[in-house]
Amino acid sequence: MVLSGPSGCGKGTVLKEFFARGGDAFLSVSATTRAPRPGEENGVHYYFLGREEFEEKLSGGEILEHACYCGNYYGTPRGPVYERLERGENVILEIEVQGGLQIREKCPEAVLVFVLPPSFAELRRRLIGRQTEDMETVSRRLEAARTEMQAAYDYDYVVVNDRVEDAVEELKAIFAAERIKTENRKNIIDEVLHYDA
Amino acid sequence: MVLSGPSGCGKGTVLKEFFARGGDAFLSVSATTRAPRPGEENGVHYYFLGREEFEEKLSGGEILEHACYCGNYYGTPRGPVYERLERGENVILEIEVQGGLQIREKCPEAVLVFVLPPSFAELRRRLIGRQTEDMETVSRRLEAARTEMQAAYDYDYVVVNDRVEDAVEELKAIFAAERIKTENRKNIIDEVLHYDA
Repeated sequence: MVLSGPSGCGKGTVLKEFFARGGDAFLSVSATTRAPRPGEENGVHYYFLGREEFEEKLSGGEILEHACYCGNYYGTPRGPVYERLERGENVILEIEVQGGLQIREKCPEAVLVFVLPPSFAELRRRLIGRQTEDMETVSRRLEAARTEMQAAYDYDYVVVNDRVEDAVEELKAIFAAERIKTENRKNIIDEVLHYDA
Repeated sequence: MVLSGPSGCGKGTVLKEFFARGGDAFLSVSATTRAPRPGEENGVHYYFLGREEFEEKLSGGEILEHACYCGNYYGTPRGPVYERLERGENVILEIEVQGGLQIREKCPEAVLVFVLPPSFAELRRRLIGRQTEDMETVSRRLEAARTEMQAAYDYDYVVVNDRVEDAVEELKAIFAAERIKTENRKNIIDEVLHYDA
């Protein structure tokens, strides 16, 4: 499951509550070439890689999606994700829309979920409420959010983050429903049908 | 939502538990030209229609799907279904696979759910356990079930009725997930995006 949404939509809170309420999934850790900030741990916040190392993995097909910001690479390492998927576990990638659309190309089995704020006005309130940024930054973020939210039309599901608990239930419902889609249950139908009575 | 599955898969029990556990949906009542049996009420068990009346509705497009068994018509009246859908309610049609596939043609927004027994052996045990039928009837039903279950591949979701409570949760998850599919949320995306900030 790819989870995207603009800054201020509350993705982080929804994820935290998802895990707090017994949500069962592996949250993918991104790789980056930027330097760790104080307190950031390798393998927890990010996998910190050298530029050469990242580019090797990239050309080796070991990065599922990637982007460049401020001269640094950010991407999703393939290994840990497929390890979990092969064990039948749920996996969540919390990534930007460009990355999400790369995942759709490479992994047609991926489910893309877009988190929307209940309204644009509410998004603005939330961004202003943070009080960590001046109004110019807020305006810039709002315009970026508007552009980003266009991608919602290309995602599979849209979760409106009005009440966090409802959003969490919706994520769980998506996982539950996707598991029992016919394309993921062909083995079970085969088994029931071809048992020799 | 179309719900189908062979005799003995436990569809009826799953539906009963779905409603007992607060499941929110309108269960469509079929129309038929066969005579009511003792205790059957018009509009509850079936809508009992005359042959001519049924055929008029059929040619008027008022029957969503239909079939003929033993010289009688059975079908789903359009009116009550769309009345509920227009109010945003969930609707369940418990019908045969032929009907299910007719619904898919006429209502592309329909979601087709097939209920499977956990195994063929278990289906046989359940049919024998009823003790209302001789072994020849059981054998015939099992062969019919095998044929019917081929249609599971053409449905959207497959619910394996092992534990009834799990099957009920899966039905609820399907309703919840389908509601937030992007195709059903375009209005909400529009609203959030086109609000003039």
